[in-house]
Amino acid sequence: MIIIMESGATKKQVSKVINRVKDIGLDVQVNQGKEQIVLGLLGDTRKVQDIAFHSYEGVETTIRITNTYKLTSRQFHPQDTVVDLDGVKIGDGNFVTMAGPCSVEGLEQIRKTAQMAKAGGAKILRGGAFKPRTSPYAFQGLEEEGLKYLRQAADEFGLKVITEVMDENHIDLVAQYSDILQIGARNMQNFKLLTAVGKTAKPIGLKRGISGTIDEWLNAAEYVAVSGKSPVIFIERGIRTFENATRNTFDLSAVPLIKKLSHFPIIVDPSHGTGVWDLVPPMARAGVAAGADGMIVEIHPDPENAWSDGQQSLNDKTYQKMMQEIQILSSAMKEISSLQELTVRR
Amino acid sequence: MIIIMESGATKKQVSKVINRVKDIGLDVQVNQGKEQIVLGLLGDTRKVQDIAFHSYEGVETTIRITNTYKLTSRQFHPQDTVVDLDGVKIGDGNFVTMAGPCSVEGLEQIRKTAQMAKAGGAKILRGGAFKPRTSPYAFQGLEEEGLKYLRQAADEFGLKVITEVMDENHIDLVAQYSDILQIGARNMQNFKLLTAVGKTAKPIGLKRGISGTIDEWLNAAEYVAVSGKSPVIFIERGIRTFENATRNTFDLSAVPLIKKLSHFPIIVDPSHGTGVWDLVPPMARAGVAAGADGMIVEIHPDPENAWSDGQQSLNDKTYQKMMQEIQILSSAMKEISSLQELTVRR
Amino acid sequence: MIIIMESGATKKQVSKVINRVKDIGLDVQVNQGKEQIVLGLLGDTRKVQDIAFHSYEGVETTIRITNTYKLTSRQFHPQDTVVDLDGVKIGDGNFVTMAGPCSVEGLEQIRKTAQMAKAGGAKILRGGAFKPRTSPYAFQGLEEEGLKYLRQAADEFGLKVITEVMDENHIDLVAQYSDILQIGARNMQNFKLLTAVGKTAKPIGLKRGISGTIDEWLNAAEYVAVSGKSPVIFIERGIRTFENATRNTFDLSAVPLIKKLSHFPIIVDPSHGTGVWDLVPPMARAGVAAGADGMIVEIHPDPENAWSDGQQSLNDKTYQKMMQEIQILSSAMKEISSLQELTVRR
Amino acid sequence: MIIIMESGATKKQVSKVINRVKDIGLDVQVNQGKEQIVLGLLGDTRKVQDIAFHSYEGVETTIRITNTYKLTSRQFHPQDTVVDLDGVKIGDGNFVTMAGPCSVEGLEQIRKTAQMAKAGGAKILRGGAFKPRTSPYAFQGLEEEGLKYLRQAADEFGLKVITEVMDENHIDLVAQYSDILQIGARNMQNFKLLTAVGKTAKPIGLKRGISGTIDEWLNAAEYVAVSGKSPVIFIERGIRTFENATRNTFDLSAVPLIKKLSHFPIIVDPSHGTGVWDLVPPMARAGVAAGADGMIVEIHPDPENAWSDGQQSLNDKTYQKMMQEIQILSSAMKEISSLQELTVRR
Repeated sequence: MIIIMESGATKKQVSKVINRVKDIGLDVQVNQGKEQIVLGLLGDTRKVQDIAFHSYEGVETTIRITNTYKLTSRQFHPQDTVVDLDGVKIGDGNFVTMAGPCSVEGLEQIRKTAQMAKAGGAKILRGGAFKPRTSPYAFQGLEEEGLKYLRQAADEFGLKVITEVMDENHIDLVAQYSDILQIGARNMQNFKLLTAVGKTAKPIGLKRGISGTIDEWLNAAEYVAVSGKSPVIFIERGIRTFENATRNTFDLSAVPLIKKLSHFPIIVDPSHGTGVWDLVPPMARAGVAAGADGMIVEIHPDPENAWSDGQQSLNDKTYQKMMQEIQILSSAMKEISSLQELTVRR
Repeated sequence: MIIIMESGATKKQVSKVINRVKDIGLDVQVNQGKEQIVLGLLGDTRKVQDIAFHSYEGVETTIRITNTYKLTSRQFHPQDTVVDLDGVKIGDGNFVTMAGPCSVEGLEQIRKTAQMAKAGGAKILRGGAFKPRTSPYAFQGLEEEGLKYLRQAADEFGLKVITEVMDENHIDLVAQYSDILQIGARNMQNFKLLTAVGKTAKPIGLKRGISGTIDEWLNAAEYVAVSGKSPVIFIERGIRTFENATRNTFDLSAVPLIKKLSHFPIIVDPSHGTGVWDLVPPMARAGVAAGADGMIVEIHPDPENAWSDGQQSLNDKTYQKMMQEIQILSSAMKEISSLQELTVRR
Repeated sequence: MIIIMESGATKKQVSKVINRVKDIGLDVQVNQGKEQIVLGLLGDTRKVQDIAFHSYEGVETTIRITNTYKLTSRQFHPQDTVVDLDGVKIGDGNFVTMAGPCSVEGLEQIRKTAQMAKAGGAKILRGGAFKPRTSPYAFQGLEEEGLKYLRQAADEFGLKVITEVMDENHIDLVAQYSDILQIGARNMQNFKLLTAVGKTAKPIGLKRGISGTIDEWLNAAEYVAVSGKSPVIFIERGIRTFENATRNTFDLSAVPLIKKLSHFPIIVDPSHGTGVWDLVPPMARAGVAAGADGMIVEIHPDPENAWSDGQQSLNDKTYQKMMQEIQILSSAMKEISSLQELTVRR
Repeated sequence: MIIIMESGATKKQVSKVINRVKDIGLDVQVNQGKEQIVLGLLGDTRKVQDIAFHSYEGVETTIRITNTYKLTSRQFHPQDTVVDLDGVKIGDGNFVTMAGPCSVEGLEQIRKTAQMAKAGGAKILRGGAFKPRTSPYAFQGLEEEGLKYLRQAADEFGLKVITEVMDENHIDLVAQYSDILQIGARNMQNFKLLTAVGKTAKPIGLKRGISGTIDEWLNAAEYVAVSGKSPVIFIERGIRTFENATRNTFDLSAVPLIKKLSHFPIIVDPSHGTGVWDLVPPMARAGVAAGADGMIVEIHPDPENAWSDGQQSLNDKTYQKMMQEIQILSSAMKEISSLQELTVRR
C-alpha cells in the first residue's frame, strides 16, 4: 500500500500516519518528493485494508498494490486448475459445451432438450429449477421436481448437470442432483451463500455479477476457495452498461484477463451476454477464439413456447449449426496452441 | 404490451402471434401501419411477460407498457405510506436522520456514537453487526454481540435501531434487536431474502442495488410487499458508473422519481453515495432539497481508527455542523411546502 | 508517478527503468518491499506521462499521482474565480439562473421566453441557434438568424446571453452575439474547438461530456485556460449510465468536488440532467443546496409545441413556482454560509 | 411512433393529441385498452421526432418504432457495401489488417513500422499525425510533417493509409495524404465534421464514441451518408463502463449487430478495446471469429520508447505471431462460410 500525503502536510501529520503503520507491525519507507511525501508500506498489507488512512489529516489518498485474494490467484498457484467430473474436464485445453433450457418446464421438454444438446456435442446439461426473476409474478421454477427431471434427462443421455442454487438452505438438495452448483449473477456477492457452497466440494460455476468488476469477481471466488475445496469455474455473462441494444455487454476481454490472474477455468455465456438468439453463434465463436475453456448456452426444442428466455434460446437447427462452427474453430485453436508459445513476452 | 412485426412479416406469421395472444385470453388490436404491422395487446398483460414473442418469426420487437409491480405503485395506493416506529415517523413530511458507525466495534464505541447521534438530532441509530465485505479477509462484523451493543446503546439514548440482515437464517435474530431490517445493496435482488423479511411485519430498509435500475428496485419492493405486511423504506445509496472520483454516483433524481411512482418513503445515504467524508454534508443538504424523507449517514467518534469506512464517516464536529445545516434547510422546505401545491401540473 | 515492478522482476529490468527515468532528468527512490520493488519518481512527472513504462519488461503497473492540469486547479489558484458580465456575477456566492428555450424558434417565441425568464429572476437568457442533433433529419437550428433574435430579446429585457458554438469557424459569429460561449457535451473533448474558444477572452460555459470523468473535464478546462484568458464555467448536465428512467444521471456530487479541485465556478443543468420536466424543480433545489453557483434551465411559453426538448421544458407557471422555491433555498444557504466555516476539517 | 396515454387521461386530452398528429399529416389508430388508451401513429414518423408529445397533459410516454437513419440501414440497402481502395477491399469476406503506431514519430520509425506491418500481412498503414490528447501538455502529433512521412512509408511498402482528421479545416490536407479518413471516438458526434468529411468521397473510418450507443453510431454514419458519397467503415474500439481493469470494454457484439442493421463494413480495434498489449492477440482472434471485416491494431518497433500508447502496442515478435493466428482463424472462418448459410433463421 502507498499513502500519498497532501502537499502541505505537516511533520506531525506524517509522523502520526507512520506511527500507526508501525503499530500494526509493518515497515514504512518515506519518499520525500518535490511536491509531496509518499509513504510506501512494506509487509503484508492485507492487515491494513480496513484502516481509514484516507481520513487522517494531511493524507491525500491511498493506493492498494497487493491483491486481497490469494488462493484464487495464479501467482499463488501457477498451474491451471482442471475441473474433472468423472472424465468430463473443464480447463484442460478443450472447449466444453453446457447446453439446455433457461427453465426446466417438464420431463418431456428437458428430455428433448438433452437429446438435442447431446447430438450437438454438449457434455453438460443446464436448466433452471430455482429461477431468480425480477418480478415476483414471473415463473419461479419447478424447484425439486425440476431437479429430478433434469437429473433423469441428463442420465438418460450421458450428460453431467449444472444448475443454480439461490439459497443456502437448498444447497444439500441441489447438490444431490447436480454436478456443478451455479451461483447466479445477482448472488456473486452473496457472501453467506459463497461460503456455504464452498463447503460442498462440488465445483462452483460462479457467474460474474451484473456490475461485478474483475477484482470483485476474483474476491468472490476467494470466498469459495477459503471455505473449502470447491474449485471455481468463472462464467462471463455480460455486464450492465449504458448500451441497451443488447441485454448485457458481453465482456470477452475477461477471458484472457482471468486466465492471466487466476488458475481457475473460465467459460462464457453468450446467451445472457447478448440476450438475442441470432447474436449467440457469432459470440460463441468469439469465445472459442478468445481462449475460453467452454461455454454455457440456452437451447430449447421450441423457443416460441419457452416459459422464459425464449428470445435468447437457440432451436435445434441453429444450435446444431453453431456446434459445427465451434468444432471448426476449436480445431483452429488447437493448431494455434501448437505454435510454440501462445503468449510470448515481447 | 405492444408487438411490432417486421416490415416483411407474412400474414401467416401475424396470425400465429394473434392466435397465441387470444389463447391466453387477451384481446388484440391490429394497427396496419405504412411500413409495419403493430399489435396492441389488451387485458392484464402481466400474464404474458414470460412469453417469448421476440422469438416468433416475423416479430421485430416487443414493448412492455404496464409495470410488473402493483402493491408498490402509487397508482394502486395513491396516499403516502408513513412508517411509524412508536412515534418516530418516516414519510410524514419531516426529515428523519439515521446515524451511526459503519460497524459496531464494541460497547463503548457504539455508546459514544449513539450519544453523538442523539445530540445532533438523529432519531435512529445505525450500525453493522453482519458486514458484507468484498474480501473474505476483511472484518466481517461482531454478529450477535454487535446486535446487543447496538440495542443497548440505542435504548440508553432513546433511539430506534436499523441494521442489516444478510441471511435468511438470521432474520429472527436480527428482528429481535432491530426496529428496521436493512437489505444491503448486494442483496437487492436476493429474492429469497426479500420474501423472507417481508413476513416479519418489520419495516424493511431496501437499499438500491449497485447497478439496480429504478424499475428493478420497485420490483424488489414488490417481493417484500406481496409476501406480507412490511412497509418498505427505499434507500438511495448511489449507483455504479464509469466515474471513480467518487465511490458511487449518487443518483438524487431517484428521490422525486420514486415519490412519483410509489407511495413508500425514500431516504438517502450520502456516505455510500459519495464515499468521501467532505462530500457528505453538501449531498445531505441536496437530499433535503430534493424532497427525501430522511437520510442514513455514517458517523464515528474517531474515524481515523474506525474498523471500516472511516474515510466516509463524519466525526462529532462535522456531524453536528451538518445537522445544523439540515435543520435550516428543513425549515426552508417546510416554507416551500406551504406554497399552495408542490408539484403543479403545467 | 509510481512504478510497481512485478514480484519476479530482475535487477536488470529494474535498472533499465531507473536509467530511463534518470535520462529524463527525474530522481528515483527505490522501495524494496517484501513482495515487490516500488519506484517513486521525484520531480515534474508531467514530463513522463507519455512514456510507456507499462510496456517495460518486469513492470506490473504505474500510478500517476500529480494531476496533469495546473491553471485550472485550486492548488495553483486558491481564490475563487468570479466571472463578471458587466455586473452579472457567477461564482460570488449568489445563485444565478440562466433560462430559455432549447432552440430559438423565432423572434416572438424568444421574446416571450425572455420576458418569462426575467419575471422569474433569471439574469441570463439561453437558447440554441446551432443545435447538435443525433439525427441529420432533426431540426438543426436557425443559425445566424437565431443569434440575432436571441440578442434582441435579451437586450429588450436586460438579460445577458449564453449560446452554444459547435464549430471553430463560427466562433467569431457567435461571439458577436453572445456573452458566454457554451461548449456542448459532445464537444467536451473537441480539443481544437477548446483551444480556439480560449482565445476569445469570453467566458466559456463548458458542459461535462456525456461520459466525461471529472479528471477529463478538468483537463478540458485546461485546454481553454492555456490558450488564453477565458474563464471557465463548469456545467454539470448529467452523465450516461445504465439507468434509463431519466435521460441522464444527474451527478450533483460534481458540485462540491469541482469546487474542491478548481477555482472556477460550477453551475447545474437539471433539464438535461433529468430530461423530464417534473423532476427539474426538485433537482434545481438540490443544486442550490449542494452549493452550485447557478443553474441553466430550459423554459418555453408553450412546451407542447416546442420544436425540441419540450418534454424537459418548464412552462411559465412551473418555472415561476420553481424560482420562488429557489429563492427560499438561496436564503437558507446564505444563513448556512454565515455559520462560521462551511467546510471545516474534522 | 406509439403514444401511451395515462390511465386517467380525459377525452379532451386524447383529442388534443390526435388533432396534433393529424395536423402534421399522419394517421392515428386508437387502441382502447382496459387500463390505458394507446395511439398508433401511421405514416412517416420521422416528421414527428421533434414534437414533445411527452409534455402533453394526459400522455404517459411515447415510443419510437422507426429508426431515424435510412441510407445507412440494411433495410434500405440489403447488399453489403464493399470499400475498394485500388484493389484493397474491405467488406468482401476477407479479414483486412490495418497496422501501425499510435503516433508518427519520425520517418525512420514509421518506415520500420511499415516494414513490420507489411511482413505480417497488413494491407493498410495507420499512424496519427494529429492526436487528440486528454491533456494539453501531452504530445499533439507531428501534423503535416507526420502525414508526409506516413504516406512515404506506406508507398515504399505498397500499403494504403488511414489517419485521423480532427478538424474541418484540415480535411483537404489530410485527404491529400490518406486513403481513409478516420473520425476519432471523441468526434463521433461532431456533426459539422461528419458532414464535412462526407463530402470528400473518401471512405470514412468512423470510430464508435466512448459512450456511443449503437443507435447513435448508426445516426452518425447517416450524417456522413447524407452529405455525399463517402462509404463508412465502422470501427468498434470499446466503450466506457464501470470496469477499469481494461482501458475500455471491448463490445464485440457490435460486430454481428451492425452487420444486421447496416450494409457498411465493420472492423475492430483490439488495441483501444483493451488497452493492454497482451490482451490484444486474443481479442483480435475473437474479432475474426465474430465476423469482423478486419482490424486496426497498434504496433511499434520499440514500444518501450513509443511516444504514446506504448503499453497497448505490439512489438515485431508479438505482432507476427498474432498475424499467424489470424491467418489460421481466417481460414477456419472461410470453411464456416462455406457451410450452406451462415445465419439461418430458426
